[in-house]
Amino acid sequence: MGSKIFVDACLGRETPYTPVWMMRQAGRYLPQYMAVRERAGNFLNLCHNPEMAKEVTLQPLDIVGVDAAILFSDILVVPNEMGMELEFIKGRGPIFHKPIKSQEDLDALRGGEDASSRLTYVYETIELLRAELDRRGDNKALIGFTGAPWTLATYMIEGQGTKSYNISKRMMYKNPELLKAILSKVTDVVKLYLERQIEAGVDVVQIFDSWASAIEPTKYDEFGWSYIIEIVDHIKAKYPDTPVILFPKGVSPFIERGLVYGNFDVFGVDWSTPMALAKEKLGDRYVLQGNMEPCRLYSKEMTTECVESLAETMRGGRHIFNLGHGILPDVPVENAIHFVNECKRASRR
Amino acid sequence: MGSKIFVDACLGRETPYTPVWMMRQAGRYLPQYMAVRERAGNFLNLCHNPEMAKEVTLQPLDIVGVDAAILFSDILVVPNEMGMELEFIKGRGPIFHKPIKSQEDLDALRGGEDASSRLTYVYETIELLRAELDRRGDNKALIGFTGAPWTLATYMIEGQGTKSYNISKRMMYKNPELLKAILSKVTDVVKLYLERQIEAGVDVVQIFDSWASAIEPTKYDEFGWSYIIEIVDHIKAKYPDTPVILFPKGVSPFIERGLVYGNFDVFGVDWSTPMALAKEKLGDRYVLQGNMEPCRLYSKEMTTECVESLAETMRGGRHIFNLGHGILPDVPVENAIHFVNECKRASRR
Repeated sequence: MGSKIFVDACLGRETPYTPVWMMRQAGRYLPQYMAVRERAGNFLNLCHNPEMAKEVTLQPLDIVGVDAAILFSDILVVPNEMGMELEFIKGRGPIFHKPIKSQEDLDALRGGEDASSRLTYVYETIELLRAELDRRGDNKALIGFTGAPWTLATYMIEGQGTKSYNISKRMMYKNPELLKAILSKVTDVVKLYLERQIEAGVDVVQIFDSWASAIEPTKYDEFGWSYIIEIVDHIKAKYPDTPVILFPKGVSPFIERGLVYGNFDVFGVDWSTPMALAKEKLGDRYVLQGNMEPCRLYSKEMTTECVESLAETMRGGRHIFNLGHGILPDVPVENAIHFVNECKRASRR
Repeated sequence: MGSKIFVDACLGRETPYTPVWMMRQAGRYLPQYMAVRERAGNFLNLCHNPEMAKEVTLQPLDIVGVDAAILFSDILVVPNEMGMELEFIKGRGPIFHKPIKSQEDLDALRGGEDASSRLTYVYETIELLRAELDRRGDNKALIGFTGAPWTLATYMIEGQGTKSYNISKRMMYKNPELLKAILSKVTDVVKLYLERQIEAGVDVVQIFDSWASAIEPTKYDEFGWSYIIEIVDHIKAKYPDTPVILFPKGVSPFIERGLVYGNFDVFGVDWSTPMALAKEKLGDRYVLQGNMEPCRLYSKEMTTECVESLAETMRGGRHIFNLGHGILPDVPVENAIHFVNECKRASRR
């Protein structure tokens, strides 16, 4: 097994070109993914089936040519295995039928060891992937992931997707102790969950704080970032050589105000944050990942324009190409391939 | 009629305290609003009925004690009178059944004079309000408003609310000429619409670019801000003494990068932007409005904490209190009153 370009880049080492992957790359824009999902019956079945999850995880490596595969799963398997009944309803997204309203509701959920030991289908998927990637012997990496405590907590409190996060935020302002108890319990599960993902064979882990931007800047450290950093510290103490990527979405104001700290390796830059700003403020401390606006994938010309601009901005800096958010379902596959090829071309050293 | 504290503050003049109003203050958190809306039958009927629209516009002055009333209406009456059939569906929000897909679709819509002259119910509402406020003779101001061209265009292109704005953004990257043609046509209507609002009697106008944050920073000037400034220039040329407020939501990265310019008076700061950052970057050029996180209204204690912090940050600066986004329907009325009272108390000179 050769050196993995993606892992090298995460650790800030020189690479022959800047590696590239795409958030949500194992997804609905790929007809081959849709075929497997059809076979699985529904989304959650696909998450629960290691053979099928392995298959869709590998598709973007083979079809699009990215440098890293990201485990196919969903962030909500964690609260699900903590004991919250989960359903994905077409057109409405994920639903928890009994959201957390009280300390009693929280106490009824499984904690760290009990919950994380139930996520066997995830660890089995990783083991299958590890074996397959080792068998291939190429230099492609495998990324594990989790949702951040705040993002998971909002789903557990709201019971579903939300535009205003008003139930979670009412709790933040009216009953912060309960919110912190939820965040702590989730944090304990996530620590063990990532540990076991690493033990099962992922090369890198990414923590998604998709709803980071729902918290006002003065409260984000207290309810968001500090829990993420607790997880990072736990993982880095045990696995110092495993790179950790953080992706808190929509946090330009925090970058500016110096609220980004911690012992992780890669900072995922969302598309609303100018890469030049991220480089100026964080580039000395972290490898930067991102950040093409995903809708640029509708146009090859706009894709090339952005890739060249990012390559130019990051010249001399430590960089991993990615989108600034997940790829959308109606993007033509050939445009995704074009993006990956252009990243490699524009950054070849 | 005495000097209006809100208008004075918009023009940067010294006032006895910092005036306050709330976005969406004439709204669902008020039982008195719900009663009128019930009588109206539905939301659009309420917008179309000047007597009822007048009544709900005045409620926050009388019940909550704000310093300015904002015309009750909806930003989507503009595309509606351009010829797009509009329906508000419970649980789904506004729907345009025939979104714009082509130049032909756009050509079929009414332009500046034809569309703006059909908004008579808005101008009549303003005339009724002007007469009532003059009769009262107190120092309360009346704010007119419009959606910004980009925000209106996204609804006209998507046909409904959207999380990813992917149809509008595909047009931005694949067919920018059509998007610009839509933006120009909307801009022409909005110019006349604001003119007539001013002629009918509003003291101040606010332009809401609610979806500003949907555009990546490098494209915002081209597709968002420049059209707003075209409107500002048009209005200020004709009505130099009428203050203009801009509220582009979610634009912290643009503030940082110096993308805010133009001859308007007040910059509305959303809650995700630290007020200290706004003051540092924009406070010399503009009066700043905002920016309490609306969910703080769930807690009187958290409201007071924020109001005092904002008063402290803006001491010596030019400021108008407001929320950093609209008030939510489940806020207790007494908490809104508390907010208004605290703003006046904390800023009294």
